[in-house]
Amino acid sequence: MKLILASGSPRRRELLTMLGAQFETIPARGEERADPSLAPPQLVEQLALAKAREVARMHPDAVVIGADTVVSADGAVLGKPHSREEAAAMLRGLSGRTHSVFTGLAVLSPEGEQTGWEETRVTFCPLSDREIEAYIDTGEPLDKAGAYGAQGIAALFVERMEGDFFNVVGLPLCRLGKMLKMVGVRLL
Amino acid sequence: MKLILASGSPRRRELLTMLGAQFETIPARGEERADPSLAPPQLVEQLALAKAREVARMHPDAVVIGADTVVSADGAVLGKPHSREEAAAMLRGLSGRTHSVFTGLAVLSPEGEQTGWEETRVTFCPLSDREIEAYIDTGEPLDKAGAYGAQGIAALFVERMEGDFFNVVGLPLCRLGKMLKMVGVRLL
Repeated sequence: MKLILASGSPRRRELLTMLGAQFETIPARGEERADPSLAPPQLVEQLALAKAREVARMHPDAVVIGADTVVSADGAVLGKPHSREEAAAMLRGLSGRTHSVFTGLAVLSPEGEQTGWEETRVTFCPLSDREIEAYIDTGEPLDKAGAYGAQGIAALFVERMEGDFFNVVGLPLCRLGKMLKMVGVRLL
Repeated sequence: MKLILASGSPRRRELLTMLGAQFETIPARGEERADPSLAPPQLVEQLALAKAREVARMHPDAVVIGADTVVSADGAVLGKPHSREEAAAMLRGLSGRTHSVFTGLAVLSPEGEQTGWEETRVTFCPLSDREIEAYIDTGEPLDKAGAYGAQGIAALFVERMEGDFFNVVGLPLCRLGKMLKMVGVRLL
């Protein structure tokens, strides 16, 4: 059965490749807007489902994976920063504190739809303004929810995690493996 | 100041490269034996220090990083498996349970010696014999403490972690960054 990743994220593609999966990447345009009143778990689940449905409509015989990731800190949901200033503000807000990363997952197949989500708690060490500026200079923050990438230089900032590490990178692999197994796709 | 990684582990080299560090790799022969009566934190700290000292003797002006990683499950310390059978026995022992990964770190410089260690708790989902055999067939387990690599197909097995993810891969990056900063080596 054909496996499709409905995401343009290079990090999600790398993770699925790391598992040895054979798949095709067809990014959803993702023009669905989520209901802003939703809590993060339901928000990412809804967006993951919308992305997977968009691609599954054109590929009804395939197994389609959709995913969406947000960072939640102090009740605010952080997406990708639009400027250096916004990235710096996000990183100052995460410095020395614990936040949550939520990834929603949807696995669609001719047999039906499955959805789920994972939360990982991430604790940052205190960051100086100099470190924040130097990190933004690397270019890493600008295309990432919450303005950091867990699999990169920001590893220096992460004192501690609780949950699935790969959930923070953008794809909770253990949960994904279980959902794929339910529709007969075995990665191992 | 010249930075030297006193480890032959390709994973440690990749992690240090990910941080953008400029360094040279000079693996210690690591023939020191640790005192088997030591608890895992002291064991890995002693082995990391022995590796770093071995390389620092030849490079007294450099900053030298030593590291050693073990898996501890039910009071037993697991190193690298020597056979398929030993790998299978280790993985059966980790299945459906929580274990600890300890990495010891040593940073030596002309200014003196620093050592430290990190513990990360890792929870595996239950594994079938078929999955264990299929995982051993990938070749991943054989050169890794505890018979698995966190940054690979075994991501499917890891339900949850508490601590530093990179500690499980072999180098606790947040702690290493702080130790290097103490001797004037800034990674960011």
